[in-house]
Amino acid sequence: MIRYLTSGESHGPSLVAIVEGVPAGLALHPDDLNIHLQRRQQGYGRGNRMKIESDKAEILSGVRFGYTIGSPISFAIKNKDWANWTNKMNQFENPSEPVATIDIPRPGHADFSGRIKYGFNDIRPVIERSSARETAARVGACSISRKFLHDLGIEIGSYVSAIGQAFETEPNHHAVKILEKGAETLMHEADESPVRMLNKDLEKQAMELIDTAKKAGDTLGGIVEVFVTGLPIGLGSYVQYDRRLGADLGAAILSIQAVKGFEIGHAFKNAVSFGSEVHDEFYLDKNGNPQRKTNRAGGLEGGMTNGETLHLRVAMKPIATLMSPLSSFDFKTMSPAASHIERSDTCAVPACGVIAESVIAPVLANAILEKFGGDTINETKLRLDNYTQKGK
Amino acid sequence: MIRYLTSGESHGPSLVAIVEGVPAGLALHPDDLNIHLQRRQQGYGRGNRMKIESDKAEILSGVRFGYTIGSPISFAIKNKDWANWTNKMNQFENPSEPVATIDIPRPGHADFSGRIKYGFNDIRPVIERSSARETAARVGACSISRKFLHDLGIEIGSYVSAIGQAFETEPNHHAVKILEKGAETLMHEADESPVRMLNKDLEKQAMELIDTAKKAGDTLGGIVEVFVTGLPIGLGSYVQYDRRLGADLGAAILSIQAVKGFEIGHAFKNAVSFGSEVHDEFYLDKNGNPQRKTNRAGGLEGGMTNGETLHLRVAMKPIATLMSPLSSFDFKTMSPAASHIERSDTCAVPACGVIAESVIAPVLANAILEKFGGDTINETKLRLDNYTQKGK
Amino acid sequence: MIRYLTSGESHGPSLVAIVEGVPAGLALHPDDLNIHLQRRQQGYGRGNRMKIESDKAEILSGVRFGYTIGSPISFAIKNKDWANWTNKMNQFENPSEPVATIDIPRPGHADFSGRIKYGFNDIRPVIERSSARETAARVGACSISRKFLHDLGIEIGSYVSAIGQAFETEPNHHAVKILEKGAETLMHEADESPVRMLNKDLEKQAMELIDTAKKAGDTLGGIVEVFVTGLPIGLGSYVQYDRRLGADLGAAILSIQAVKGFEIGHAFKNAVSFGSEVHDEFYLDKNGNPQRKTNRAGGLEGGMTNGETLHLRVAMKPIATLMSPLSSFDFKTMSPAASHIERSDTCAVPACGVIAESVIAPVLANAILEKFGGDTINETKLRLDNYTQKGK
Amino acid sequence: MIRYLTSGESHGPSLVAIVEGVPAGLALHPDDLNIHLQRRQQGYGRGNRMKIESDKAEILSGVRFGYTIGSPISFAIKNKDWANWTNKMNQFENPSEPVATIDIPRPGHADFSGRIKYGFNDIRPVIERSSARETAARVGACSISRKFLHDLGIEIGSYVSAIGQAFETEPNHHAVKILEKGAETLMHEADESPVRMLNKDLEKQAMELIDTAKKAGDTLGGIVEVFVTGLPIGLGSYVQYDRRLGADLGAAILSIQAVKGFEIGHAFKNAVSFGSEVHDEFYLDKNGNPQRKTNRAGGLEGGMTNGETLHLRVAMKPIATLMSPLSSFDFKTMSPAASHIERSDTCAVPACGVIAESVIAPVLANAILEKFGGDTINETKLRLDNYTQKGK
Repeated sequence: MIRYLTSGESHGPSLVAIVEGVPAGLALHPDDLNIHLQRRQQGYGRGNRMKIESDKAEILSGVRFGYTIGSPISFAIKNKDWANWTNKMNQFENPSEPVATIDIPRPGHADFSGRIKYGFNDIRPVIERSSARETAARVGACSISRKFLHDLGIEIGSYVSAIGQAFETEPNHHAVKILEKGAETLMHEADESPVRMLNKDLEKQAMELIDTAKKAGDTLGGIVEVFVTGLPIGLGSYVQYDRRLGADLGAAILSIQAVKGFEIGHAFKNAVSFGSEVHDEFYLDKNGNPQRKTNRAGGLEGGMTNGETLHLRVAMKPIATLMSPLSSFDFKTMSPAASHIERSDTCAVPACGVIAESVIAPVLANAILEKFGGDTINETKLRLDNYTQKGK
Repeated sequence: MIRYLTSGESHGPSLVAIVEGVPAGLALHPDDLNIHLQRRQQGYGRGNRMKIESDKAEILSGVRFGYTIGSPISFAIKNKDWANWTNKMNQFENPSEPVATIDIPRPGHADFSGRIKYGFNDIRPVIERSSARETAARVGACSISRKFLHDLGIEIGSYVSAIGQAFETEPNHHAVKILEKGAETLMHEADESPVRMLNKDLEKQAMELIDTAKKAGDTLGGIVEVFVTGLPIGLGSYVQYDRRLGADLGAAILSIQAVKGFEIGHAFKNAVSFGSEVHDEFYLDKNGNPQRKTNRAGGLEGGMTNGETLHLRVAMKPIATLMSPLSSFDFKTMSPAASHIERSDTCAVPACGVIAESVIAPVLANAILEKFGGDTINETKLRLDNYTQKGK
Repeated sequence: MIRYLTSGESHGPSLVAIVEGVPAGLALHPDDLNIHLQRRQQGYGRGNRMKIESDKAEILSGVRFGYTIGSPISFAIKNKDWANWTNKMNQFENPSEPVATIDIPRPGHADFSGRIKYGFNDIRPVIERSSARETAARVGACSISRKFLHDLGIEIGSYVSAIGQAFETEPNHHAVKILEKGAETLMHEADESPVRMLNKDLEKQAMELIDTAKKAGDTLGGIVEVFVTGLPIGLGSYVQYDRRLGADLGAAILSIQAVKGFEIGHAFKNAVSFGSEVHDEFYLDKNGNPQRKTNRAGGLEGGMTNGETLHLRVAMKPIATLMSPLSSFDFKTMSPAASHIERSDTCAVPACGVIAESVIAPVLANAILEKFGGDTINETKLRLDNYTQKGK
Repeated sequence: MIRYLTSGESHGPSLVAIVEGVPAGLALHPDDLNIHLQRRQQGYGRGNRMKIESDKAEILSGVRFGYTIGSPISFAIKNKDWANWTNKMNQFENPSEPVATIDIPRPGHADFSGRIKYGFNDIRPVIERSSARETAARVGACSISRKFLHDLGIEIGSYVSAIGQAFETEPNHHAVKILEKGAETLMHEADESPVRMLNKDLEKQAMELIDTAKKAGDTLGGIVEVFVTGLPIGLGSYVQYDRRLGADLGAAILSIQAVKGFEIGHAFKNAVSFGSEVHDEFYLDKNGNPQRKTNRAGGLEGGMTNGETLHLRVAMKPIATLMSPLSSFDFKTMSPAASHIERSDTCAVPACGVIAESVIAPVLANAILEKFGGDTINETKLRLDNYTQKGK
């Protein structure tokens, strides 16, 4: 099984991650990580931090002559901003110049609970790790599983279906069409848009909303649609509650900073429909193979993949740092105060899409490894192909 | 940490569960499980199975003189229907009379993928374990964690806010009011309704919809609102992706049969709003304590509890077994066929609420144990009280 | 992966276990468990409890028509003695007649630490769960993995090489010879002896020692040699500390009540030899295949199986309940007292062998599943055979 | 719970580790790691590699102003030798000059099984990760848990009781005496010896044996005695097989490269003694507190700490790379060949002691956190002190 841990503060020397359990023989180059690190930094509505950092993963272990060797893969992403923070984030000594503590929690952030939980008398240590900067390490780590899946013919992609009130009002048939070419084709098409939307009218509305929000010192969230094509039938299981694939996928998505909602297909809409409008009937195609005309189940039935495209929907809340600060209080004086302002974005939904694509990759790679095993990608691929062909 | 496993087929001799890691000294009686087993069997729209079974947990270990002793707690729930299935579900011998295989998968169920995954030539073994009958064992198992939380002053409750098109169109202020008395008060009030709704008009609509669906051989899903009161600040953590409490809660909820969507608060609605409309500002009350006027975050910020009521929303799809069967195919003949019909309910959303209340209990109990430790509930309680008082 | 939990007190109604993750399609009968439950009850030197109980597993789930179905397998083993303990171990009510507390801890048992850890004012609840009676559930649970391994051609067996001062002074060549026919042949031969020894002289000495000890109110421990034949090369891994197979096997063995030492091969003897006397040189046999003349490594190199017979050595301490009681003290009066006497054996080393054989089975089954995957035993077997043949 | 992963090849750019779950507020400086990294490099009988490397951990996250902040702690240890290996270990390109493959497996190493398991046509990638160089990362990682324990008053130390035939023939009373001052005092005294022995005569014999072995191109192993003082009563548990502390400690020790045997106290000797000679009787001291005159149980009873000094014995096999090479074969030609020679030590038992001290630290820290919880060391310490005082 693939395990990974990330580390690093937002303004510390670097982010570091270790990915354990990747089979040997996988062709891997830093660009397999960097392409997604770069995608994560894009998007209309981002703040200045994205201009400072241009994330590159320096791989430190686990690869020889361009292939993984079964050993853990570690990498570092330097924080270029660290040079400006060596006093405020001094690791081992008290700062040479006094460093002001942060005492006013921002509503919507980890600030309030984190300070109490860890007994700090400063919110700075909370901000440093709860910051979404951590997702750079996560995207890097998960891109390795993603490359593994890619080489097995399993593709992941996403697009943005809502930014604030600029949202799709009905299922996007264009997306379904593109997905016939694989989810990475969809990913590339979405990447062409500054807000990763597929519809030009909506894109325009979204960008105007971002402009409006920025002027008002306000922020925006949105909805991301994630897709996976090429998955075999029967990943996950119904036999024990904690082996249902939808639960693991949900946990991965819900572990993303600012993500508060998760659906498999349009679950909340389906919940208020009749069964006859929701379930995906079978028919036999001209070759006699079972097919479905619809995919309202989003590719999962009974906690398992069912051979259809996996479709996950992700709700990201508006960014919690507002330049027009919200009401808060001061922990030191226990008096009312305007919320602390930390450098931030107006809207990060496009980046959220890249992160969502990433975090589900280890979940799916592990579901593959559970069913097919394998210490080398060739072993796994051969078994997967045998299984898929038998299924036909 | 509390771990549990459930076992048992829908028509086998019994369901069995083991719960490991419960602290010693917790007052525990079979009624603490049975009350929720009974609640799970209620609800307008249930089928005949609920009339056959009247679930009672027989506790087999881990309790002496009315208190837990730190040892694993196991219990069995007899399947009364087993007597009629000893041939079809013969454990160790081939059946004395031929047993027809089930070859036509029901759309929306585990039938199709399960049969392929496990290489069966019969769908019966899939149905037996993927059936929501398993949730009886789960409700029993989780009720022990729930009793632990209750004795620490942490209450769980829920109500149904939607059954088909009978759904609440705005936040329910009545619910917020009741929650001031604790989430169990809300639970009791919801239990008074045959569909576990708080609004009498909606209740009437929902029951009519169920009648309509039943006549048409159709089914219904819905939405459940789950609440937890009394949680301390700072359960869960932001420091590593897999320690965010929202992810664990989401996984627990999404592991419920037929649940496909999960929100913390109204996440999908919040996602399309401005930040200034979403985040919960602080004010200081007359005692100088920080408070919030709103709880749109649903009690979680930065992956941690923030001292507000936990509010989770659960989307249950309509039951997948329709008496007016959907189009399917026959695995043996590979020809089109009407879907197999297995005894089923028209609507099980009220039961889903009881299950949702249950499955989050071990997640919260473990978050408590991670922060406070404790081999006895007294140890845990003392530390929790000290922490909570210091926080004030 | 296979997971299991056991439950049950020594004098409670029954022991219950659940085994999760067993592939489908494995032929399984209660006798596959009962044969080892019965073997566990044998052995010269056992006390009266073994005469009361004649353990039988009643399988409650996971098997249909004689084959596993991928679902969790649960079973119960009734405690016949329960009928005599319904007052002392009353589950939910205070006892009808007063029950004396146990206040004098037995040295060598969990009594002292368990009472303090769990805050009991009675040692009874500690005794009930720390008792080796729990191993009946464990042997049952592990016998399922053992049957899985058996059907893949992997055999487990053991014999006793020491009981007290009756110990082998040099490696047993007879055992090596028998092992050519597979470890189960060795198991059967050992089972012929009342002390599970292979050497008749030693057997006689051991039985005399047991008689002597019994008369003196004393107890004996000993050493068990466990073997596994038929393992493929490359189970386990060197890539991360917690994936070394020797560590997992050690943990399994050291989790047995009264086991305090573990070796892979004669590790302590090898530790004080030169490298040239310890490592197993390769030669090529007449077919050109690499072979070893020795197996001092005990079948593991670099944390992985190396194709040789796995050889583990297990040190069991003398039973801690002595009929000639040791010095202790009374928790209530805090005055010196002779140790509490609980019904017990004089020597249980033969049983320990059966338990040791059992507990390593899930570890090995999981190492197989990690490398080969598989939702059915046929899938796993086919992949294992392909790998083994390619290795030749 | 504290989790950690290590990464890095022996001749790659650097070793990297991440330690997750360390409470906040722990005073931590790189020297807390470096002191043990340096100790690990000492010892009579080490080879040239130890002269090349002078390991220093560069901490990259998780510490601010000299205290941990609850966030994961990562660090890198540069491999100075990497500069000479950029061609042989080229990460992403084929080597500019041809690099000879290694085709002759060394008996006793991971070489044979690792090459087959991972499907390599070269043993180099196996050597790079199976090498004991990995233990530098591990010692670094575990030193953080060790510092946590130290600040709670729990000390770890070790000495070497055997190198080849230079072994102690009876329990070392001097060691028991030193341990009254705490296990770190013992550690310091052992560190004074080039072979980490306490007895000068034995030290001389051991050094002569090392000289002899080196001349003969042979190698030596030995036995390490590890001690922990200051542990509270009741860490670990008897309630489930996988919660017994001895099993976790055993797994940690057996995960060390070249370690093949593990005892709690003198378990193999105790196994062949009578119960009356083994178990540690209680007496009440002049203050009325229960005490033991002996500690043959090694500080563990019933899978739990019992308040006595923890005593673990570790068997390390002789190093498997002999300069007088053992018989082997060539994977390419499948003909007999002398074993490959890789730079190595003659004896590394003193280093093994440092590693053994280290690897048990996270196990004990987690046992503390399980019982006492705590997001800050102050929280944990207060609860530990309360528990310990109540126990008195």
